[in-house]
Amino acid sequence: MFRDCMERVRQTAPLVHNITNYVTVNDVANMILACGASPIMSDDADDVEEITSICGGLNINIGTLNRHTIPSMFWAGKKANELGHPVLLDPVGAGASRLRTKTAKNLMKKLRIDVIRGNISEIKTLAAGSGTTRGVDADLADSVTEENLEQMIALGKAFAAETGSILAITGAIDLVCDEKDCYVIRNGRPEMGRITGTGCQLSGMMTAFLVANPGRALEAAAAAVCAMGLAGEIGWSRMQPGDGNATYRNRIIDAIFHMDGAVLEEGAKYELR
Amino acid sequence: MFRDCMERVRQTAPLVHNITNYVTVNDVANMILACGASPIMSDDADDVEEITSICGGLNINIGTLNRHTIPSMFWAGKKANELGHPVLLDPVGAGASRLRTKTAKNLMKKLRIDVIRGNISEIKTLAAGSGTTRGVDADLADSVTEENLEQMIALGKAFAAETGSILAITGAIDLVCDEKDCYVIRNGRPEMGRITGTGCQLSGMMTAFLVANPGRALEAAAAAVCAMGLAGEIGWSRMQPGDGNATYRNRIIDAIFHMDGAVLEEGAKYELR
Amino acid sequence: MFRDCMERVRQTAPLVHNITNYVTVNDVANMILACGASPIMSDDADDVEEITSICGGLNINIGTLNRHTIPSMFWAGKKANELGHPVLLDPVGAGASRLRTKTAKNLMKKLRIDVIRGNISEIKTLAAGSGTTRGVDADLADSVTEENLEQMIALGKAFAAETGSILAITGAIDLVCDEKDCYVIRNGRPEMGRITGTGCQLSGMMTAFLVANPGRALEAAAAAVCAMGLAGEIGWSRMQPGDGNATYRNRIIDAIFHMDGAVLEEGAKYELR
Repeated sequence: MFRDCMERVRQTAPLVHNITNYVTVNDVANMILACGASPIMSDDADDVEEITSICGGLNINIGTLNRHTIPSMFWAGKKANELGHPVLLDPVGAGASRLRTKTAKNLMKKLRIDVIRGNISEIKTLAAGSGTTRGVDADLADSVTEENLEQMIALGKAFAAETGSILAITGAIDLVCDEKDCYVIRNGRPEMGRITGTGCQLSGMMTAFLVANPGRALEAAAAAVCAMGLAGEIGWSRMQPGDGNATYRNRIIDAIFHMDGAVLEEGAKYELR
Repeated sequence: MFRDCMERVRQTAPLVHNITNYVTVNDVANMILACGASPIMSDDADDVEEITSICGGLNINIGTLNRHTIPSMFWAGKKANELGHPVLLDPVGAGASRLRTKTAKNLMKKLRIDVIRGNISEIKTLAAGSGTTRGVDADLADSVTEENLEQMIALGKAFAAETGSILAITGAIDLVCDEKDCYVIRNGRPEMGRITGTGCQLSGMMTAFLVANPGRALEAAAAAVCAMGLAGEIGWSRMQPGDGNATYRNRIIDAIFHMDGAVLEEGAKYELR
Repeated sequence: MFRDCMERVRQTAPLVHNITNYVTVNDVANMILACGASPIMSDDADDVEEITSICGGLNINIGTLNRHTIPSMFWAGKKANELGHPVLLDPVGAGASRLRTKTAKNLMKKLRIDVIRGNISEIKTLAAGSGTTRGVDADLADSVTEENLEQMIALGKAFAAETGSILAITGAIDLVCDEKDCYVIRNGRPEMGRITGTGCQLSGMMTAFLVANPGRALEAAAAAVCAMGLAGEIGWSRMQPGDGNATYRNRIIDAIFHMDGAVLEEGAKYELR
C-alpha cells in the first residue's frame, strides 16, 4: 500500500506551497523535489492566497514565525481549506515560547488541519500544555519508548479525536494516528537528530504525499514517515569514514531521490495498532 | 571568446549585490564564490543603496518577495542605474501570482534592466501575459523545442527590442538574445531541474560575468549560461551510484569552482542565430 | 586545555539562540549540531526574549539585518545580559554600510558583549572607523601578517580593554585576545574563504563553547577558532579530485562532527602572547 502512496507522488508531481522557516527551507525544497513533487515558497500576505490556489497542498511550518508571516499562514490556510487542499502544520518549537504555542493553537482553531507533524514535546504541549520542549528538539523525558507505547498511542488517538487532525509524532519510535488507528513505525536512525531540519523535510514531503493520495491521508502520512526513516537508514549505509552530519543530510535527500515504491514497501517497518 | 569572459571574472573578482530569496540564497552565494566573484546579500531599505554602491552589479530575484523587500529592489536598482552598474532581474514565479507579475513588470518599467533571466513561462508572461507558469517551474506547454525554435527566437528578439534588455531564457534549449542576435545553447542536463535554485545560481553568476565584462553583455550572459550547463554536465559525470539531487547540487557548484576559460570554451555548445 | 573546552560542549549540549542572517543559517545550525550543541533560531521581537531565556547563550549576527530584526537583537541581548548568558556579536559587513556600522556599535554600547568575532576589516571599523571592508570580506590591505603581528596584537588588546569584550579576529592568522593575553592561531586553509559563511559557522560554534565553559571565555573562544581552522585542514585533506567549495563546506562541518578533544589538542597550532 505504501508502494502506491509513493508512486502516486512521482506520477502526479504535486505542487506544494510552503510557508516555512529560513533555516531549513532549502533542504525542504530539495526533499520535495527528490520525492517527485514541486515546491513553491511564498509568505507575503499579498501573495499567499494565489500561490496556494495554484498548488495542491499547504505546508505551514512555524520555525521562524514572525509578525508578517503569521497572518500569511492564516490567509493561505483559509484559502486551502476553501479549495479542499490538504493542510499540514509543523508546530516547530511549540512549548518553547508563548508566541509559538499560541500561534500553533490558533492555527488549529481557525483552520481545518489535516495533519499535525511534530516531535512528542510539541504535540504534548498542544494536547495538554504539559510538554517540556527543549528548544526545537524533543525533551528526553517525553520520549515515546517501548515501555510507554500503549499510553502514547492512547494519547495520540485521544488528541486526534479531539482535534479531528491526523497526528504524526516523530522520534525514535514514530506514531501516525487518527482517532481509531495508529501506525507504529520503527524506521530511522538516531543520527538523524544531528541534522537540522529532518523534521521540516519530512513535513514538506508528507504534504506532497497527502496531495497525491486523496482520501487516504492516514496511510499517506505513514508512508511518508516510513520513507523518511528508510532514507535515513539507506543514507547512513552509504556513509564513508569521516562523513558527518553535513554529508548525511545530502545522503538522506539522495536516498529519497532514488527510492521507488517497491523499495519503500520492502523497507517499511511498521505495525498497525 | 567565452574563455575571456570567464577569465575576467576570476581576474577581477567582482562584488555582486544580491536581493534574493531565502530558499536558494546559500547556493547563490557559493556559486558566486565558485566562479571567482564575491557575493553580498542585503535587502533592507536602509542598507541597499550603500551596499549597491560598493558593489559592481545588482542581482534582483523575486523568489520570496515581500512588502519590505520590494521597495528595496527599487531603491537598489535606481542607485545601480545611477552608477552604471549592470542590473539583472530574475522574475521567479512571474505568472504564478499577480504580485509577482506586477512587481517584475514595475521593475522593468522603472529601472534599466540589463538582463532578464527566467524560464520560458516567466518570460512569456512578461512579454505577453500568456505564460502558463506552473509555480516556479516552466510549463511543459511553453518549452523551447527544436520544432518551435524559430518562433521562440523571434519572440525573444522582439521582446528584447521592446524592453531594451537582454533576455536569457533557460530550459532544455537556452536562448540568450538581444534585438539582433540570439545565442542558442544546448549545454546542460534535464536532471538540473530536480535541484532547487539552479536558475537562481545562474542569475547570481551571470551578474558577476556582466560586471567583469563591460560592453560585452550579450556575450557575457551567454558565457554564463554555457558555464552553468557545462557544470551540470561535468557534475553529472562525477555522480556515484546512489547520489541524487542533493549531491548533484554540490557537484555543479564544485564544477564551476574548477572551471577555467579553456574548459568552458571547449565545452560550450552554442550557435549564433 | 582546549581538549576540555571541546569535551564540555559534547557533555553539556548547550542550547544556543541565534539571530542570524538567512544566507548561512543552515550551515550555522548544522555546525552547532556537529560540535554537540543545539541551535534555535528566532528573530521576532515577540519571541526572542523567551527563546533566549531557555537557551544558554546568544549569537547575534548582523549579516542580513533589517528594521524588524534589529530591535530583536537588542531585546534578546538585554535578556541574555540579565540572565548572565554569554553574548557573541558577529558584525558582518561593519564598514560596508552605515546601518551595519551603526548597529554593531549600538549593540556594543547597549549590551555587554562577551566576544566580538569578525574579520580584521570589521574590527578595525569598530575600533577606529578605519577599516576598508570589501563587502563582507576583509580587505587585503587590512590583513594580519607576520610583519604587522605585533601591531595587530596591540590593537586587539587595546580595543579589548576599551570595550571589555574578547576579540576574535579571524583571517590567515587568527587573534583571540582580551586586554592582557592574545592567542595567535595558525590553523586553517586559505580555501575556507571561498565558502560562504565559515565565519558565521565559527560564531555559532564559539557561542556553544562559551556556554559550556563558564569563567574561561578567552580559552573557549580560542579553542573554537582552533577547532574551526583544524576542521578546515582535515576537511581539505579529504577532498577528492573535482571537489570544490560546495563539497568543502560539507567536509568542514563533517570534520567538526568527528572531532574530539584529543584531536583538537593535538592539531591546535597557537601561541599565547
